[in-house]
Amino acid sequence: MNNRPLILITNDDGVDAKGIKELTKCLRDLGDIIVFAPDGARSGMSSAITSNIPIKYKLIKEEEGLKVYSCTGTPVDCVKLAINEVLDRKPDLLASGINHGGNYAICVQYSGTMGAAAEGCIFGIPSLGVSLLDHLPDADFNECCRLGHEWAKWIIQNGLPDGTYLNLNVPNIPQVKGLKLCRQANGRWTNEFKRSENGTGEPVFWLTGSFENIEPIQPDNDTLALDNGYASLVPCKIDVTDYDFLAKLREVEK
Amino acid sequence: MNNRPLILITNDDGVDAKGIKELTKCLRDLGDIIVFAPDGARSGMSSAITSNIPIKYKLIKEEEGLKVYSCTGTPVDCVKLAINEVLDRKPDLLASGINHGGNYAICVQYSGTMGAAAEGCIFGIPSLGVSLLDHLPDADFNECCRLGHEWAKWIIQNGLPDGTYLNLNVPNIPQVKGLKLCRQANGRWTNEFKRSENGTGEPVFWLTGSFENIEPIQPDNDTLALDNGYASLVPCKIDVTDYDFLAKLREVEK
Repeated sequence: MNNRPLILITNDDGVDAKGIKELTKCLRDLGDIIVFAPDGARSGMSSAITSNIPIKYKLIKEEEGLKVYSCTGTPVDCVKLAINEVLDRKPDLLASGINHGGNYAICVQYSGTMGAAAEGCIFGIPSLGVSLLDHLPDADFNECCRLGHEWAKWIIQNGLPDGTYLNLNVPNIPQVKGLKLCRQANGRWTNEFKRSENGTGEPVFWLTGSFENIEPIQPDNDTLALDNGYASLVPCKIDVTDYDFLAKLREVEK
Repeated sequence: MNNRPLILITNDDGVDAKGIKELTKCLRDLGDIIVFAPDGARSGMSSAITSNIPIKYKLIKEEEGLKVYSCTGTPVDCVKLAINEVLDRKPDLLASGINHGGNYAICVQYSGTMGAAAEGCIFGIPSLGVSLLDHLPDADFNECCRLGHEWAKWIIQNGLPDGTYLNLNVPNIPQVKGLKLCRQANGRWTNEFKRSENGTGEPVFWLTGSFENIEPIQPDNDTLALDNGYASLVPCKIDVTDYDFLAKLREVEK
């Protein structure tokens, strides 16, 4: 037992993805690291949990200041299992990513990377999701690592409010113009399916689509910042209660 | 084409579950109904989407004012596929459930039922999730149907604000004391895994656990209302931006 910060790292692209390896490398100087991540790709898993089959994990690498585990579950399963069964103390930071692909705007709803960050937050761990707007397996994570390190360090020093976690997205350019503190853009995916046929001629549907920013000129929205060459940082809440509409409903009820 | 309201119904327990059949039956008088639901149980799927394999659907029942489809995807896939490929107009209501089991407090994060309701909301459809605090396959849905019908009717008449959907939970008692307009309780699951062994003697972990209400005396929290024999209705937001902390971060940056 030492008194270095403890950092839990996970992702949704799987323990062998370049993004999680780069993130692990760049956060080594900030503390002891436990990587506990899915054994393969779990993109789009949101906050899904595995309740109908058991899950397993195994230690796959161990060196001074670093342990790496792979797990058969979802990103949220990984966070739950690490905290409930493996870690001997509460981490000072949970970092999720670096995701191969952006998690701006409504993507936070579907993302396994952000599901894991939310889960850390539910456990009271200051949590950060990091995503690069590049899906390539060998993407260049340099700018993303620089900003991820900066905010990881900031979080370890300053903490985060209960129930709040951070969503960092970095555009796919060699040098970002800076970082903007943002709100989640109001948008949705459109034209979401590509129709094709399976081997027996049945129609099948592949998820695809493009993102539509409904209020593109809305100030400080994350999608706009990214489009303009800035990294975006959105603080997110676990509590999804709509307090404004709750107050209106109470007026109606009176 | 008629001018009756169009109601899209889905769930996460699968198209054959009692809960979705009861909900369908009780909403028939409010409009034409399309049921488009998973072909089996998808509990705990949150807002997960299927991106690595194609999905399929088929019409399994058709009568005047009702069509029932089963789909191989997640609850959110069902909503997306129904809207993108099957429906000829935008529904006036999306109703998700009735879930066999409660989706109060933090359960909204993990629930496929609520993931589907959120997805309807993202598409601009007034959306309602309905859950009964009883996991039994042959649970008694009478009180739940009565309240679900009441709020479905209210939503069709009044609509909901953009980006807001409703989460209705009903306790497992023969007659509820009434309905409380609530906020999401602040809590988390604890002791989440049961350790056992698989056939070859490896340790495996089954998800289990119990819910801990962190602020049980917090006024108007949904878990407290349910514990006291009331149904709870929580308005939920798609936008998870923490605007208070965003303002604080901007002060720090200055």
